[in-house]
Amino acid sequence: MILQRVTSPGIAHNSYLIGSGPEAAVIDPRRDCMEYLRLAHENELRIKYIFETHRNEDYVIGSIELQKLTGAVIYHGPGLEWGYGSTLTDMQEFGLGSLVLKALHTPGHTDESISYVLGRTRGGTIAVFSGDSLFAGDVGRTDLYGPSEAPRMADNLFESIHARILPLGDEVILYPAHGAGSVCGTRIANRDYTTVGIEKKLNPMLKLPKGEFVQRKLAEKPEVPPYFKQMEKYNLEGPPLIVNYALPPPLTPAEFAELLESGALLIDTREPPGFGGAHIKGAYSIWLEGLPGFAGWFMPYDTPILLLLEDRTHLETATSYLTRLGYDRIEGYLGGGIESWYNSGLPVEGTNLLSVHQLKDMLDGGQDIIVLDVRDEIEWQEGHVAGAQHIYVGELERRVDELPFDRPIATFCTVGHRAGIAASILLRAGFPHIFNVLGSMDAWKAAKFPISR
Amino acid sequence: MILQRVTSPGIAHNSYLIGSGPEAAVIDPRRDCMEYLRLAHENELRIKYIFETHRNEDYVIGSIELQKLTGAVIYHGPGLEWGYGSTLTDMQEFGLGSLVLKALHTPGHTDESISYVLGRTRGGTIAVFSGDSLFAGDVGRTDLYGPSEAPRMADNLFESIHARILPLGDEVILYPAHGAGSVCGTRIANRDYTTVGIEKKLNPMLKLPKGEFVQRKLAEKPEVPPYFKQMEKYNLEGPPLIVNYALPPPLTPAEFAELLESGALLIDTREPPGFGGAHIKGAYSIWLEGLPGFAGWFMPYDTPILLLLEDRTHLETATSYLTRLGYDRIEGYLGGGIESWYNSGLPVEGTNLLSVHQLKDMLDGGQDIIVLDVRDEIEWQEGHVAGAQHIYVGELERRVDELPFDRPIATFCTVGHRAGIAASILLRAGFPHIFNVLGSMDAWKAAKFPISR
Amino acid sequence: MILQRVTSPGIAHNSYLIGSGPEAAVIDPRRDCMEYLRLAHENELRIKYIFETHRNEDYVIGSIELQKLTGAVIYHGPGLEWGYGSTLTDMQEFGLGSLVLKALHTPGHTDESISYVLGRTRGGTIAVFSGDSLFAGDVGRTDLYGPSEAPRMADNLFESIHARILPLGDEVILYPAHGAGSVCGTRIANRDYTTVGIEKKLNPMLKLPKGEFVQRKLAEKPEVPPYFKQMEKYNLEGPPLIVNYALPPPLTPAEFAELLESGALLIDTREPPGFGGAHIKGAYSIWLEGLPGFAGWFMPYDTPILLLLEDRTHLETATSYLTRLGYDRIEGYLGGGIESWYNSGLPVEGTNLLSVHQLKDMLDGGQDIIVLDVRDEIEWQEGHVAGAQHIYVGELERRVDELPFDRPIATFCTVGHRAGIAASILLRAGFPHIFNVLGSMDAWKAAKFPISR
Amino acid sequence: MILQRVTSPGIAHNSYLIGSGPEAAVIDPRRDCMEYLRLAHENELRIKYIFETHRNEDYVIGSIELQKLTGAVIYHGPGLEWGYGSTLTDMQEFGLGSLVLKALHTPGHTDESISYVLGRTRGGTIAVFSGDSLFAGDVGRTDLYGPSEAPRMADNLFESIHARILPLGDEVILYPAHGAGSVCGTRIANRDYTTVGIEKKLNPMLKLPKGEFVQRKLAEKPEVPPYFKQMEKYNLEGPPLIVNYALPPPLTPAEFAELLESGALLIDTREPPGFGGAHIKGAYSIWLEGLPGFAGWFMPYDTPILLLLEDRTHLETATSYLTRLGYDRIEGYLGGGIESWYNSGLPVEGTNLLSVHQLKDMLDGGQDIIVLDVRDEIEWQEGHVAGAQHIYVGELERRVDELPFDRPIATFCTVGHRAGIAASILLRAGFPHIFNVLGSMDAWKAAKFPISR
Repeated sequence: MILQRVTSPGIAHNSYLIGSGPEAAVIDPRRDCMEYLRLAHENELRIKYIFETHRNEDYVIGSIELQKLTGAVIYHGPGLEWGYGSTLTDMQEFGLGSLVLKALHTPGHTDESISYVLGRTRGGTIAVFSGDSLFAGDVGRTDLYGPSEAPRMADNLFESIHARILPLGDEVILYPAHGAGSVCGTRIANRDYTTVGIEKKLNPMLKLPKGEFVQRKLAEKPEVPPYFKQMEKYNLEGPPLIVNYALPPPLTPAEFAELLESGALLIDTREPPGFGGAHIKGAYSIWLEGLPGFAGWFMPYDTPILLLLEDRTHLETATSYLTRLGYDRIEGYLGGGIESWYNSGLPVEGTNLLSVHQLKDMLDGGQDIIVLDVRDEIEWQEGHVAGAQHIYVGELERRVDELPFDRPIATFCTVGHRAGIAASILLRAGFPHIFNVLGSMDAWKAAKFPISR
Repeated sequence: MILQRVTSPGIAHNSYLIGSGPEAAVIDPRRDCMEYLRLAHENELRIKYIFETHRNEDYVIGSIELQKLTGAVIYHGPGLEWGYGSTLTDMQEFGLGSLVLKALHTPGHTDESISYVLGRTRGGTIAVFSGDSLFAGDVGRTDLYGPSEAPRMADNLFESIHARILPLGDEVILYPAHGAGSVCGTRIANRDYTTVGIEKKLNPMLKLPKGEFVQRKLAEKPEVPPYFKQMEKYNLEGPPLIVNYALPPPLTPAEFAELLESGALLIDTREPPGFGGAHIKGAYSIWLEGLPGFAGWFMPYDTPILLLLEDRTHLETATSYLTRLGYDRIEGYLGGGIESWYNSGLPVEGTNLLSVHQLKDMLDGGQDIIVLDVRDEIEWQEGHVAGAQHIYVGELERRVDELPFDRPIATFCTVGHRAGIAASILLRAGFPHIFNVLGSMDAWKAAKFPISR
Repeated sequence: MILQRVTSPGIAHNSYLIGSGPEAAVIDPRRDCMEYLRLAHENELRIKYIFETHRNEDYVIGSIELQKLTGAVIYHGPGLEWGYGSTLTDMQEFGLGSLVLKALHTPGHTDESISYVLGRTRGGTIAVFSGDSLFAGDVGRTDLYGPSEAPRMADNLFESIHARILPLGDEVILYPAHGAGSVCGTRIANRDYTTVGIEKKLNPMLKLPKGEFVQRKLAEKPEVPPYFKQMEKYNLEGPPLIVNYALPPPLTPAEFAELLESGALLIDTREPPGFGGAHIKGAYSIWLEGLPGFAGWFMPYDTPILLLLEDRTHLETATSYLTRLGYDRIEGYLGGGIESWYNSGLPVEGTNLLSVHQLKDMLDGGQDIIVLDVRDEIEWQEGHVAGAQHIYVGELERRVDELPFDRPIATFCTVGHRAGIAASILLRAGFPHIFNVLGSMDAWKAAKFPISR
Repeated sequence: MILQRVTSPGIAHNSYLIGSGPEAAVIDPRRDCMEYLRLAHENELRIKYIFETHRNEDYVIGSIELQKLTGAVIYHGPGLEWGYGSTLTDMQEFGLGSLVLKALHTPGHTDESISYVLGRTRGGTIAVFSGDSLFAGDVGRTDLYGPSEAPRMADNLFESIHARILPLGDEVILYPAHGAGSVCGTRIANRDYTTVGIEKKLNPMLKLPKGEFVQRKLAEKPEVPPYFKQMEKYNLEGPPLIVNYALPPPLTPAEFAELLESGALLIDTREPPGFGGAHIKGAYSIWLEGLPGFAGWFMPYDTPILLLLEDRTHLETATSYLTRLGYDRIEGYLGGGIESWYNSGLPVEGTNLLSVHQLKDMLDGGQDIIVLDVRDEIEWQEGHVAGAQHIYVGELERRVDELPFDRPIATFCTVGHRAGIAASILLRAGFPHIFNVLGSMDAWKAAKFPISR
């Protein structure tokens, strides 16, 4: 028996390849799916089944892509007008060598959500793939159908967990579809290895009676990035195939400048100090590992995208992150990086960078500066710099008018990454006095500066 | 400046990636072309040009495949009704960063053959890519248009070499399209690093006056594998794209047996001792590194192919070798190898293996055994076992009737590889008493046994 | 939190790297320990602790090797006169980022055996590393101190499991030191993913009351390979460091022949059909994946070892397998494989290979042939060919006198691998009529031939 | 025949592995020598010889390291009191399969310099490994024995080239010990592929008569980094072996701070914009690819070194670069990079970055700013910003007193890399107003600003 987790960092997505004898199944494949083929080949397996736990909203599913390469059959849950694959029924079983996978209908995150129970043909449940129903330390979102449906979804989720998953037994290993950092749960724990029993001990949501559970779920207000709509459409109808696995080409500064002028959007994936030191006017600053979580807030699907990287070796990572979100128009990257740009005599601009000590001094000295906290609602409520203003980074672009144009603004988040995005949005909007606070709340706390609630 | 050779072993084919500044060109790309993309990416280059030296007959050209992945433009020589790409003219120049590539029309191997001269924009010839015109130690074939055209082709080749390539200067580095072992030259030397001047010193064909040169070329009778026809068609019209980069799947013994029964052909790529020890009835025995050179003699293009490998890790190599010859119907390989076959209780057969000492004893003892030498004409003429019969391995299948059915036959070549193919052909034809001589002529000579001429 | 299993195939050994924050621990490192460094580097971890579960007897522990490269401290259990590292005490705790590892004294396999319980600093047991105490589907050996101590050891093991490990809770993930195929348990199941609760459900040994448990353990007669003595000495005193990470060099047939003549031992790692087809006189036939399990039965520590491989790419695997058993005198491998040997005119010999159908016919026809079954005692008792003789492969070399010298002998095991070893031992001993039965019992059963008990 | 170049970037050093039949030789191995073993293994070769072209002064030779791993014998030229290996004589020949390597004494760069002529056993010179005598576009340095010996060395070099190397023939391929960017030649061309004849055409030094040649050599004033002394000592006596191939560990900000406080030196290998944005006080700013060329100017051999990297994946590169210069005391790198530092609330500082447009405006506006040009003498003489002051970057640390402490200083080089080093040196020296000009002379020229000579 082979069981391999294949993760997509940033969206903290887990897919799984399970093999036994000469057969394998993949649960929730990602779109760049050569890794499953490699694992199957190395273990001398033939991929026979592709199982989806639900219509995902945070990434493009790779089922059709993988089917095209393997001839495997695709299954997903009941109740949707799927444009591809087959609909399975609750309790349907699939043999896989000496193993059995059984579909368990577990609605709540979505109506068609399926968990897959892994057992031996000879008896004995080993594991459950719980999709977006139950995570380590958290449960799935129930807000995706809108406020009017949320109570029903929360109720369903409670039942799915308590009446279907937990009774499988404490000893059953739990393989959820997401790990810590996903937008599909509010507070997923950083535990990649868990069981039903460990969750019963450690997951605070599992200790609540139904009424409190539903109340807690309704009180959550997780962010809904605009790209979810595109993902839902793709994952219902079947996404476009990746026609071309080639990496985007290097571009010269002149080619790059021309594409920018004609409307291409530039993502600069360097860390805040480098972006602060020198960048190209108009760039979005989204650090490399932030692409999966934040590109979907800002990038439209019909505009060419350009990349400026710290290092050429980041190209494959950056491209795969964007491909997983369905961005297929990456026209190229700046060959030689920012250096080739300014070596060509082309203009760069900087961002003002502040340490928390400098910020504290400015605030204490009564200097005129707005601290713009761009973290999410929960983070904000857990404590912030006194007097700060709060706008979530994902909403900043459309709420930029709420800020005074000519006053100094210091963007602030947890460590300076999202503050970097925010700073670049304000620079794009033409704000003249923008500062990014390096280290932000982590550094602020480490320096033992006061926190307001 | 970057210059990388990418070889296809077995057919001993050389392709080249040349890069300067941000631009690159590829000369004679092979069909599995991800390697050029990898090299371009690592050196931060954009592939702009694809140059063909001629319509190749021994492998599928990867020009369209690579164009699809890069957008590069394809060029080839004049005089053919190409189904793709652009026709260039003699002396046409192409800038590539600080380099210039100049097309030099060098007919002889084929009429449209082009060499490419590499120089610096500021002057100074550095190298020439001579295609199938001039090799290390040999020159190209001139027999491909048939006997009536051969004198004209040989004359043309002499002129192309003496009037166009040699005058480039002794110091010019020579990059031919083939190395030792190719069927595109008769006696290519094992020198991967050479220059025009080194060839003038060491290449025997360059020392002949025109008359003798032509006579020598006309006297050569190189083999013409039947698959050449398919290659010529593909490389003129544009070959089919590789739809699916996935490796063929493992098959169970039962699936394998079923496909064999329904007409699939089996290639067993193990070495002769393993094939001799145990193999599946009906298999072709073609050792792994012999696939590029010999599969094209035996495999039709419309029949499914199955593989039996020594080691799962050989799958990628075996598949790429067949793909380069245009075989796109590889249905799978036997998971677990021959062992899984006989562990399932399925029948195997063996081949009798002989050492040269055993063979010598049998011959000396007057035992009834035919030594069947399956090497090529030239090898045969350079010396053989007294009393042996000669049929080239590529022709054996259609000339099998020339052999007596019920007498013992010992297949013989240089080391036992081609003898292994021959043995498998005779076994397929139902011959009951087949022996393969391990080590064949190399061992025979090492044992200092007598050689007949 | 990072948790990575690093396995040693063949001996089915599991080691583990656990990381949290910037710190890591390794449990039971193998001797070729660069993999732990690679994992630590990739996850930006510093290896701080090395924990041993017990003094291992089936491989050389890599603790000192890894300590030398990292500066980590080594811990092991109480009661032995260790030549290196520190002795820990029961219930001693070690912080590792946000995790805690707690030593749990679990004697039974050996007296100093320690399990390590993994929990969070904030509370909550996640997993237990159970060493050789508790496996998936089995428990550890209790015979290593000899028959007089075995009852005490079995009693201790029962207590360690029932009083210390099982009470950790059904939900706790179980990470044992061995998987299926190890000589450290009799019948370990092929389940790499298990929990305490799953073992309670599926492990037959856990369902027995103490009396029956002890009886069952005393009834087992697992094999004790002679190399265990060397491992125990090494792992108590501290093994020699690998001075030289370089792979052994290729040797020419002449160099190879010379070393053989001067007393070097030759291991031929090819599969039975290849060995049967042609091999060098005097070779041990031990298939590649059988090296870890069987080389220790036959190879002395003070004699140079030579390798004959199917494929040059097997060198690293073969070398690592032997290195893990403490064999540091691998002088080289035959460059070009068996082919270069016979191409040089050097003599080879073959083995007779039989299919089960051929064997059945011979037996049914009353032909004079001894079926020599070399499987272990338990396999033999579960069923064999009627009239077969039984000698375990590991003991064959010293019991060769029990066999008649001039009668045909067919070696027989489960699939033909151990039968191949046995055949080579008999050939080395000069037996003239040796046959190896390909597929052996698996094929015999698949062919539905009768089995005797 | 196999011929592989193994380069050490930054010092632009070329070593070579040559193989034929089962034997290989390595010319001028670098200290981290596993790559030669990998190449030998892949080509089934045994490394038999290690040849040195001369006692190198710019890197640690890996001869003893490689000898220890392979048992190969080491040869070098006559006249030095070598602490290891054997001294060869002029015209001594070494067989290598079907090849011959002949030593050609070619003094000039150093007295014991040897070139190696590669030919076939059957006759025919193919290539020459010219060490530091003849490069593509340049010849070796002749200043290393000091001014009084320089005329003799230049005369010797002329004779070695004209009387020994050039007569080998235009067609002979040239493999020098350095490519473009080395400190061992003044103006080596960026042509990795050359021949004796190409050099006769394109190398300006080869067109000079002896008198002019010597004059030109005496007029050159190449830099002599202080670490050369250590290299010469190591490479004469035999350098220390790399005891420990493990990469340096990640350190926490607290550990890092403590080591800095106790005197460790910090190299920040990020690009100028990142260093400018935020860095740790006291750091040397040496960009990654600048380590081989510039670390040797600043780092003593007896002080611990710490690294701050842009990306963890740069660790192996940074470590190998320093190891090749003999720095064996790299204590660790900052885990999590600069971000983990400022997230911990630890203080950072920035550097002022200027674009050339900003610098031009400041100069035109009469603002008080010193342009400090840190390029080498030749670059400076070829043109600079009017009014700039010139101190070579390598000498800046000891000539810092020549600069006014309290005036703004803008460091300037070709693209801003060496200017970054200079800026960090001035910051370390406490200068309060330091600017780094991004793009420096390349950008200045691209912007078509005036140049003074």
